[in-house]
Amino acid sequence: MSTIFETNLRVRYAETDQMGYCYYGNYAQYLELGRVEALRSLGFRYKDLEDKGIMLPVLDFQIKYLLPAKYDDLLTVKTQITEISGTRIYFNYEIVNEENKQIAIASTTLVFVSKENMRPVKAPEEILNSINHAKK
Amino acid sequence: MSTIFETNLRVRYAETDQMGYCYYGNYAQYLELGRVEALRSLGFRYKDLEDKGIMLPVLDFQIKYLLPAKYDDLLTVKTQITEISGTRIYFNYEIVNEENKQIAIASTTLVFVSKENMRPVKAPEEILNSINHAKK
Amino acid sequence: MSTIFETNLRVRYAETDQMGYCYYGNYAQYLELGRVEALRSLGFRYKDLEDKGIMLPVLDFQIKYLLPAKYDDLLTVKTQITEISGTRIYFNYEIVNEENKQIAIASTTLVFVSKENMRPVKAPEEILNSINHAKK
Amino acid sequence: MSTIFETNLRVRYAETDQMGYCYYGNYAQYLELGRVEALRSLGFRYKDLEDKGIMLPVLDFQIKYLLPAKYDDLLTVKTQITEISGTRIYFNYEIVNEENKQIAIASTTLVFVSKENMRPVKAPEEILNSINHAKK
Repeated sequence: MSTIFETNLRVRYAETDQMGYCYYGNYAQYLELGRVEALRSLGFRYKDLEDKGIMLPVLDFQIKYLLPAKYDDLLTVKTQITEISGTRIYFNYEIVNEENKQIAIASTTLVFVSKENMRPVKAPEEILNSINHAKK
Repeated sequence: MSTIFETNLRVRYAETDQMGYCYYGNYAQYLELGRVEALRSLGFRYKDLEDKGIMLPVLDFQIKYLLPAKYDDLLTVKTQITEISGTRIYFNYEIVNEENKQIAIASTTLVFVSKENMRPVKAPEEILNSINHAKK
Repeated sequence: MSTIFETNLRVRYAETDQMGYCYYGNYAQYLELGRVEALRSLGFRYKDLEDKGIMLPVLDFQIKYLLPAKYDDLLTVKTQITEISGTRIYFNYEIVNEENKQIAIASTTLVFVSKENMRPVKAPEEILNSINHAKK
Repeated sequence: MSTIFETNLRVRYAETDQMGYCYYGNYAQYLELGRVEALRSLGFRYKDLEDKGIMLPVLDFQIKYLLPAKYDDLLTVKTQITEISGTRIYFNYEIVNEENKQIAIASTTLVFVSKENMRPVKAPEEILNSINHAKK
């Protein structure tokens, strides 16, 4: 069973659209916050990873919108690292609102890439260990 | 065989991130442009649809990132309406760069919703007819 | 002397550009957070204001960028309501980073507008009183 | 008298907020488009400038919002380079809608900066000449 990391955020006015909903494209930022804070909980700053020459671009992204998020809603992003293997890391996300109702579920695949030559590289040993340790 | 609608856009500086790539969340806006222009080609302004009390929120969204898009790249969004049935409309997208290389492929499902009660409604007859006509 | 309200935020990856800086246009969202939280501290939710039929669009906005904000920087937005008179409300802002260095200074003018006819309206009495009380 | 460069854009759905207006922070992107296309008209790609090691961050930005811009509005950004001197370049902007009504007026100051040491550098000779030539 994998650890679930939680992070909170409030829907900004800028993020609403004229439907009165949070624009569907803005959820990508919320998931970014989810995985950055998940890594921070494990002792890694994504910033440090980049400073060491490793980037983590997104390979694919899937999301289902279950309920609209509205302006000023306090959302919780629940993030799970489902797998880390070779050069890739997989995340699952659930976003819930203050009434604990599911707003969205999503998943992403990211790849560890060397800044130097933009080619995939193995996940750094300390991240691997830390994630596998958290999973136990 | 379904018609493919093409629309062009340039990656804005605001849309890049410090990796030097177009941020993965910004593609959602590009797909929005793709489907809005596809509908416009069929004679419909999304704006008019809303003025008539019908909104079209996104239900789900999937995307694969194949190559990075960079600042000032001139991209082409190729949009296909793959199905319209009942209350839903399905789009497929391919984004290519100036060298005609695939940047991303994506799909979305949207639902026709009444502004009044926020409940799904049947796709307007004229859109149905126009899309089915374009498909022939 | 006017009260200074403080709110914190972290620069998101999405908000950086390929210069490695927070894109200059994103500060507008930070100021929005500053004034929303300032109003919340005074007991007002901007959301409630809108529910009562009053909107608060921005009339003008000035900003000086003093130092770049970088990814993952923890910023503090210090917001001051400098004046509220008739139909308008004036805010000053200072954004500082973790080393307490000034990142930006800014100001905005907003106008109370009726949702119904989109015309300026007087600032609601309870906001006037609350702000004038906080100023003492 | 300085040349006025015009560029068109359509307000995206993503750029609206729940007021039904284009969010005030998104205009910064429109001005970016204005100055990028102004430079392109003079024979310079901002991208090439960065490839040569020169960046052009914004130092200050002022804007007055005169009329709301709405979804799908076709806007024209009219950009004027008012001055280039030493390490700085000054732009004025006017944004008009399809009825040629003024939506906003704005100005920005940008500084030429070396990518290497992040210090201000003189404006490249060819840009200086080209701009001064266009002004005649």
